[in-house]
Amino acid sequence: MGMTMTQKILAAHAGLEEVKAGQLIEAKLDLVLGNDITSPVAIKEFQRLKFGEVFDKEKVAIVPDHFTPNKDIKAAEQNKFIREFAKEKQIKNYFDVGEMGIEHCLLPEKGLVVAGDVVIGADSHTCTYGALGAFSTGIGSTDMGAGMATGEAWFKVPSALKFVLKNKPAKWVSGKDVILHIIGMIGVDGALYKSMEFSGEGLKYLSIDDRFTIANMAIEAGAKNGIFPVDEITIEYMKEHSKRESKIYEADEDAKYDEVYEIDLSTLRPTVAFPHLPENTKTIDNVGDIDVDQVVIGSCTNGRITDLRIAAQILRGKKVKKGVRTIVFPGTQKIYLQAMEEGLLRDFIEAGAIVSTPTCGPCLGGHMGILAKGERAVSTTNRNFVGRMGHVESEVYLASPAVAAASALTGKITDPELV
Amino acid sequence: MGMTMTQKILAAHAGLEEVKAGQLIEAKLDLVLGNDITSPVAIKEFQRLKFGEVFDKEKVAIVPDHFTPNKDIKAAEQNKFIREFAKEKQIKNYFDVGEMGIEHCLLPEKGLVVAGDVVIGADSHTCTYGALGAFSTGIGSTDMGAGMATGEAWFKVPSALKFVLKNKPAKWVSGKDVILHIIGMIGVDGALYKSMEFSGEGLKYLSIDDRFTIANMAIEAGAKNGIFPVDEITIEYMKEHSKRESKIYEADEDAKYDEVYEIDLSTLRPTVAFPHLPENTKTIDNVGDIDVDQVVIGSCTNGRITDLRIAAQILRGKKVKKGVRTIVFPGTQKIYLQAMEEGLLRDFIEAGAIVSTPTCGPCLGGHMGILAKGERAVSTTNRNFVGRMGHVESEVYLASPAVAAASALTGKITDPELV
Repeated sequence: MGMTMTQKILAAHAGLEEVKAGQLIEAKLDLVLGNDITSPVAIKEFQRLKFGEVFDKEKVAIVPDHFTPNKDIKAAEQNKFIREFAKEKQIKNYFDVGEMGIEHCLLPEKGLVVAGDVVIGADSHTCTYGALGAFSTGIGSTDMGAGMATGEAWFKVPSALKFVLKNKPAKWVSGKDVILHIIGMIGVDGALYKSMEFSGEGLKYLSIDDRFTIANMAIEAGAKNGIFPVDEITIEYMKEHSKRESKIYEADEDAKYDEVYEIDLSTLRPTVAFPHLPENTKTIDNVGDIDVDQVVIGSCTNGRITDLRIAAQILRGKKVKKGVRTIVFPGTQKIYLQAMEEGLLRDFIEAGAIVSTPTCGPCLGGHMGILAKGERAVSTTNRNFVGRMGHVESEVYLASPAVAAASALTGKITDPELV
Repeated sequence: MGMTMTQKILAAHAGLEEVKAGQLIEAKLDLVLGNDITSPVAIKEFQRLKFGEVFDKEKVAIVPDHFTPNKDIKAAEQNKFIREFAKEKQIKNYFDVGEMGIEHCLLPEKGLVVAGDVVIGADSHTCTYGALGAFSTGIGSTDMGAGMATGEAWFKVPSALKFVLKNKPAKWVSGKDVILHIIGMIGVDGALYKSMEFSGEGLKYLSIDDRFTIANMAIEAGAKNGIFPVDEITIEYMKEHSKRESKIYEADEDAKYDEVYEIDLSTLRPTVAFPHLPENTKTIDNVGDIDVDQVVIGSCTNGRITDLRIAAQILRGKKVKKGVRTIVFPGTQKIYLQAMEEGLLRDFIEAGAIVSTPTCGPCLGGHMGILAKGERAVSTTNRNFVGRMGHVESEVYLASPAVAAASALTGKITDPELV
């Protein structure tokens, strides 16, 4: 029996010739990640077990991105605790204010993840790096603590769903629409503990940023990971960003999948997930009349340069509707700088949007754009659970940067074709 | 007996030929200001007294700048309450996310204050507008509520201190150093309930932004207001920003002052206020070895374009010291955009600083850069009281943009001449 791409990577990292779905294995880790919410818990676990040193100073990454710059004294104390640990353990990839960005935008940009890696991160959207052909998954803080110490982690080998993508998507259809369509189709538990493996000739129409967006939201279908085959687009990205050696794994011809879905990208429409689950999707043609108070463009899902270019293209020379708070969050300082050099930030500001420092910000109800009772946001983020962006009676509609930008102009969820 | 400049303005607004220090008067208001902390209280008072409408829809300004973009649900609810009031009362000068800036940078920029005005604001640094030759003072939220309703306020006419400024300041000496020097000299209650009236040929060396900084911190000496005579620099600023008619008042030749201080600007040195009072000043030559964890450049005191130019000049092509969180807060969206067009934001980002949306942020321990226990910041803000920027055991050192930028490079409070 052949192995899936994910199984191939896990087998190699477990020193096994073959693994099977459901098998428990212990795999070597190429990177262990934590943020400002999860690292303090992980560090305390690490200290409690008296591990001493981290397994590899180069293979631990700590990115305080959720409540930074420190939103309050609690955040300040947490970050101080993390900073001191990073210094003491000489963790090379600790990124403080000024160097940091949103973790899942930052690590690939810094070249810390390449194809063939096994990565765990104490953040559910660690699955993002599957875009590069890595096995990458979110774990709890305790596992992060142990991972930092041992450089290994236990996994139950996942079975897989295969998504065969075909044809070219239409103008305003992006990676976000692809993944929202899929989650709408299979549901938020449709891929529970499985791999979502993407393939097909349609891949060539998906930029690396589209792929980051798609892999990022694999967890929103319950998946253990999402993963893309390595092609020229991946290789070009890795060449530009990393000096590390990558290793390309391919699924066996006879790999077994629980399901195979064929998706004709040319038939997709801009898609919006209604409150309060990412599976509550409607195409833009069926959203009806939804007024919004706030528009959020950015996050680990859609804070990359391609996302900002699309949003700027729509906002350029226009004005956001009065009363619609429009907040743009570039994913990293580098993306921020590039967006500035390309004139995108000017487009945002002149349109009446504001540009935040890179932070997870409002996505998780953290800071920098929290919703009051009864308020609604359309957001390029990844979750629209009850109270996710603030008050339990607020609402979040998930959409692409194009739909979010168009909606900022009209104050209603809007088809980008119509602005 | 002659009148001071402040007394002249108050007399005119009270419809009196003459006023004397200590006299109680009722003066007509040209502008009533509130922010997101004080406006909710003022609005509740306004509603409780069943005033109905505001006295003039053009003469009330509400700027939610302290905890915006909403830092948490409480801020979100407060801002929703303010927004609904502003909409209901058709308050023209309500500035939401995307239009707003730090109130004391925004209102002059929007042309809402000109020479000869009487302005009250439910924020202690409302005294900033004295830079334009207006009488402008901070009041409580209850007074704001009554002011919004009646367009009038009671004042006890202040006596005055006169500061005669002479000669040209040296290269790195700015308005911030002038006001810190003065507060160091007279103390934080040195001007209690008095006007601080600035005059002298040295004024011509102080840009309008220097004057905003100086007037802004008059309250830190306990003053009722700080005020500058109107000269060509003031007139040029007003022409560029406002369509309103200004009125120029001059102190009488025989005006009485409680004290007259002569200050030779050429003898001043960059000045730093040590914790925990703005009067604890030392010149840069005497600060000793003070490590800092964070550098804050911006605020209503020093977030204007001149301030950012000076900071960028020092940071350009260099790197902030690793571990020193350097946060730049442009005062308004317009200043942000101008700083971007001039390449200053690129200088900040490339140096390893971050650029925030315009907000009061960490100045008052609000958000976007709060200090942990034992941490130190050098900051261009206006107060360094115990716990002002976070934990009660943190420390804030007040300084100019030049000193703050130089300190970011070295991680110690540093003379800008030495970097």
